[in-house]
Amino acid sequence: MEIEISHCGICHSDLHLIDNDWGTSLYPLVPGHEIVGKVAAVGEACPLVLGQRVGVGWQRSACLQCEHCRTGDEHLCSHQEATCVGHMGGFARRIRLDGRFAFPLPAALDGASAAPLLCAGVTVFAPLRRWGVRAGARVGVIGIGGLGSLALRFLRALGCEATAFTSSPDKREEALGLGAQEVASSTNAREIRALANRFEFLLCTVPARLDWITYLQTLKPNGVFCLVGAPPGLLQIPAVQLVKSQRAICGSDIGSPAAIRETLAFAAEHGIAAQVETAPMIEVNAALQRVRENRVRYRMVLTN
Amino acid sequence: MEIEISHCGICHSDLHLIDNDWGTSLYPLVPGHEIVGKVAAVGEACPLVLGQRVGVGWQRSACLQCEHCRTGDEHLCSHQEATCVGHMGGFARRIRLDGRFAFPLPAALDGASAAPLLCAGVTVFAPLRRWGVRAGARVGVIGIGGLGSLALRFLRALGCEATAFTSSPDKREEALGLGAQEVASSTNAREIRALANRFEFLLCTVPARLDWITYLQTLKPNGVFCLVGAPPGLLQIPAVQLVKSQRAICGSDIGSPAAIRETLAFAAEHGIAAQVETAPMIEVNAALQRVRENRVRYRMVLTN
Repeated sequence: MEIEISHCGICHSDLHLIDNDWGTSLYPLVPGHEIVGKVAAVGEACPLVLGQRVGVGWQRSACLQCEHCRTGDEHLCSHQEATCVGHMGGFARRIRLDGRFAFPLPAALDGASAAPLLCAGVTVFAPLRRWGVRAGARVGVIGIGGLGSLALRFLRALGCEATAFTSSPDKREEALGLGAQEVASSTNAREIRALANRFEFLLCTVPARLDWITYLQTLKPNGVFCLVGAPPGLLQIPAVQLVKSQRAICGSDIGSPAAIRETLAFAAEHGIAAQVETAPMIEVNAALQRVRENRVRYRMVLTN
Repeated sequence: MEIEISHCGICHSDLHLIDNDWGTSLYPLVPGHEIVGKVAAVGEACPLVLGQRVGVGWQRSACLQCEHCRTGDEHLCSHQEATCVGHMGGFARRIRLDGRFAFPLPAALDGASAAPLLCAGVTVFAPLRRWGVRAGARVGVIGIGGLGSLALRFLRALGCEATAFTSSPDKREEALGLGAQEVASSTNAREIRALANRFEFLLCTVPARLDWITYLQTLKPNGVFCLVGAPPGLLQIPAVQLVKSQRAICGSDIGSPAAIRETLAFAAEHGIAAQVETAPMIEVNAALQRVRENRVRYRMVLTN
């Protein structure tokens, strides 16, 4: 099926692809994997209809036959393909892909603010669901950017008590507006230490080296530290910190098609919209530069 | 309540207490926390009856009021007390403790082979239950000693496919008899690497430095690496190994009273008995020496 793209968010992963930071980029490269648009053409078996609004995220296909695909974890399929690795992504007018990886957009969602839900949104919402984060839980969110800002909104809707950790003093007030109940420095060990034994769940959205040991100690017994970005280097953790209080440290990678559908439905139900800046697609290079300089609040979305 | 002790297992933790390896030992010290015996005296509110067979594990009390105690995780209570830290443990004729931490022994269980269930048994069974390890799952067990040998028996009863990792060539055959479907070296990286992407769950029972990265790669996506002993030093893990396949690394610490009851009931139902050597209580020092030298197959139990 083919989509006439109306919006495409810019994710930090797009910069990593442009720069080939992961060594996986294939050129010529068209980035963009937070795509919203209208169905412009369908093949025979496609369940979508012409003109329907849909969204596309990081993943554009999978084998649909392996044990992961058969159990709703298509994003863990070893044959998965990414929307903009070896294929032309969403910084474009149109895109063609398997309709099973395009998801109808609920009517309540606005195109520009829904685009970031397709990658940033599901990346933070999926682990909250998979790990059973419940109303009343105290949750820490490390990094208040495209992902963290959405995490705060989801957590408020879930009835959780969120603490935002940020290294940007100017984001402290904003984080409260996004849903955080308190804000702490993400780099000041004393501030972090004051939150010892506090969180059921800690969501790390920044691919930065952190003071892992101090952060682990902010988890209550049975607490879970979940990374959705991969910091460089090694995590260094004393095993006793995991054993004594039954803590876990885990990773979560984007989200399955089912998780994307749930993210969109939950956002529509709870009026969750990403806070975005928009720019015309033609200004993509200037927009990328703003993202690169971390000046965007909180997601840049390109429009056609 | 008071118990007339008939059996008490020797756990490696007893050696750590004797040697004050954790800096928490209080002398004079009487070790022993895998206790089986008969109720010899009861207080007013005690739900147990005289003559009843009961078992006692690592924990002898908790506040019974905090959020952990109120939700069945008394072993995570910050006011918990250990059976043989600051109290006289089970290498004795009698012990007196809170009857809420003494558990009736199902009739089907033999005293000597049930004693190790109170610590070693629940320590391996509780995480299998908490993490939802299901029939058909492939599970790796690292270290085939007092804990690992019981883990293999539980896994066979749960219908799992277990791989035993051991550094002792002479345990290879024995591990198959205990329930493993295959055996691999726990220290030969090539043998471990051959099992890449194989396990849903990996249970590490040895407090030893391991090749963490190679072991992590034996986990399938969504796989969990669970430590029940705390190796010295730091775990060093590339975060990308956790994120890319949504793996988790976690710790588990003994088990709650509810977990001990379930362990005993499950063992009785499935005929699970620890393989033990016994020695009279008076020979405790020689018995401890055999444990220290790793010569016991697989648990030493002292008898009165």
